[in-house]
Amino acid sequence: MEIEKKVQHFLPSADCPVRNILARLGDKWSILVLVTLDANGTMRFGEIQKSIGDISQRMLTVTLRTLAEDGLLVRTAYPEIPPRVEYRLTPTGKSLMPHVNALVEWALEHLPAILSRRNAEEKRE
Amino acid sequence: MEIEKKVQHFLPSADCPVRNILARLGDKWSILVLVTLDANGTMRFGEIQKSIGDISQRMLTVTLRTLAEDGLLVRTAYPEIPPRVEYRLTPTGKSLMPHVNALVEWALEHLPAILSRRNAEEKRE
Repeated sequence: MEIEKKVQHFLPSADCPVRNILARLGDKWSILVLVTLDANGTMRFGEIQKSIGDISQRMLTVTLRTLAEDGLLVRTAYPEIPPRVEYRLTPTGKSLMPHVNALVEWALEHLPAILSRRNAEEKRE
Repeated sequence: MEIEKKVQHFLPSADCPVRNILARLGDKWSILVLVTLDANGTMRFGEIQKSIGDISQRMLTVTLRTLAEDGLLVRTAYPEIPPRVEYRLTPTGKSLMPHVNALVEWALEHLPAILSRRNAEEKRE
C-alpha cells in the first residue's frame, strides 16, 4: 500500500483507528497475554495468571475481555462444576503474532542500546 | 529465541523494557512521525508538522525529542540564519520500520472487523 493511503488511515487524529489498535497492543498487559497464549495454546484463567506471575486478577480479567472484544482471543465457558473457562487465540489473533514476535525480537535486540541512551539522558538532566 | 526466554524479558512488570518500548510505539504520535520520516527521508520540523496535519508544535517537539533520545531518529541543527533543523531516521530507526509497517498493514486489514465488533459491544452495554 502506498504511504499516502496508509497515512490517511491515521487521520483524523481524534479517532485514529490504526493508532488506537497500536496503542492497545502497547498497553501494560495485552502483548504479554497474547505471547503467553500463542506459546501455550488453550489456557485456563489461572494458568495464564500463573504464567504471567505479577498480573492482578482484575487486570487479567479486563485484558482478556478487551482482547476478546477485539476478536483476538475467544473465551469458552464449559457448563461444569466447578465451572471451567478457557481462552485461546482466534485465527485473527494468530495472524497478528508473527508481527508482534518480530517487534519483540527487535525490541530485545535494541534494548541494551536504547536503555543505556535513556540512562545517559537522565544523568544529563 | 525460545518463548520462555522472551517472556522473562517482560518481567518484572514495574520496569518491563519490552512493554516499555511497545507502549512508546503505541503512543499517540510516535508511529505517525516514524512512518512519515520513513516515507520522506530527511525533513524539517515544519515539513513533518505539515505532513501530519493535526499535531501541535509542542506535541511534535516532545515526540521528536523522545524518538531522538531512544536513538530512532537524529536531529541535525545547521548554524545558518535562519537556523535550519533537520530530522531523519537512524539505522536503528530504519531497522524498526519493516516491523511497524507490517503491523500497520495488519491493523488496516483487520480494522473493519475490529471496529464493527467494538460498535456491537458498545450497543450491547
